[in-house]
Amino acid sequence: MPKKPAVKDYIRTIVDFPHEGIMFRDVTTLFADPRGFRMAVDQMLHPYAGEQIDKVVGLEARGFILGGAIAHQLGTGFVPIRKKGKLPGTTISQEYKLEYGEAIVEIHDDAIKPGEKILVVDDLLATGGTAGAGIKLIERLGGEIISCAFIVDLPELGGRKLLEEMGMDVHVLCEFEGL
Amino acid sequence: MPKKPAVKDYIRTIVDFPHEGIMFRDVTTLFADPRGFRMAVDQMLHPYAGEQIDKVVGLEARGFILGGAIAHQLGTGFVPIRKKGKLPGTTISQEYKLEYGEAIVEIHDDAIKPGEKILVVDDLLATGGTAGAGIKLIERLGGEIISCAFIVDLPELGGRKLLEEMGMDVHVLCEFEGL
Repeated sequence: MPKKPAVKDYIRTIVDFPHEGIMFRDVTTLFADPRGFRMAVDQMLHPYAGEQIDKVVGLEARGFILGGAIAHQLGTGFVPIRKKGKLPGTTISQEYKLEYGEAIVEIHDDAIKPGEKILVVDDLLATGGTAGAGIKLIERLGGEIISCAFIVDLPELGGRKLLEEMGMDVHVLCEFEGL
Repeated sequence: MPKKPAVKDYIRTIVDFPHEGIMFRDVTTLFADPRGFRMAVDQMLHPYAGEQIDKVVGLEARGFILGGAIAHQLGTGFVPIRKKGKLPGTTISQEYKLEYGEAIVEIHDDAIKPGEKILVVDDLLATGGTAGAGIKLIERLGGEIISCAFIVDLPELGGRKLLEEMGMDVHVLCEFEGL
């Protein structure tokens, strides 16, 4: 019997996207495959079997696909963190640094209640800028973050180290070397 | 025993978002509630019990949350349709008209194989512009659309009529009057 593909095998690399010199790790080929998608969701949740999770928070936009599936598997609600100006209700916002300039993410101020146990999910951990800002938003609302789970980590960009220095538990399914 | 809330009861209305005079139907309160979210996913799939569905296609960005959950429940893959420039691989694109100006949506050109049976999902059906463009993309790749499912329909905006005139089966969970 041939070896079954791992999650990493379903991920496609696109050279020079979004600009020259970047190797873009594309999870859409993983999501489009029924076995790949289910395997990713299952493996992202393995470490939390038996743990209480009240809500899944996903980061715009690929974190929504994954977060919707994970919240559904857990039987929890899902809360989006979005770029500035996209959420219709009253929000709190958090700035973070990009390579050039700054960006802002937001969360509805009533989306998480103090003490709720939160799992943060996104497809890819790079510098950790967006995830770090998202963590701050959740903590400002009093949420208790159980863990941050990603499909891909790019260790050279230091995101995992940054989140761990913020006191986070970080779970990733695979790593890619190179930017 | 008090009456259980329906899907519609979980949806919040935000007045004057994104601009004055608009009543924005906000599904984030539905997604954040474990019962509401599961009920929405279940009810969106009721009409298709026993039907073959190969892939779920979701429209950016709230359609990703819902589409991720629906694909997970069905055990299918998920394919995103995104705004121009967001998908990293080779795409085909489709223009559509907005109230003022135009917009473009894209799909990866290898995301759907000819003959695959597709369920299209999004949170809200308004004018049907985005959904209509998405349908054209799927059909250009040879996908066979089983149905288009939405949580909310705004009948005054005519989206349902537009999609039905395109030959689509349309399934919605609730309607709101007024823009």
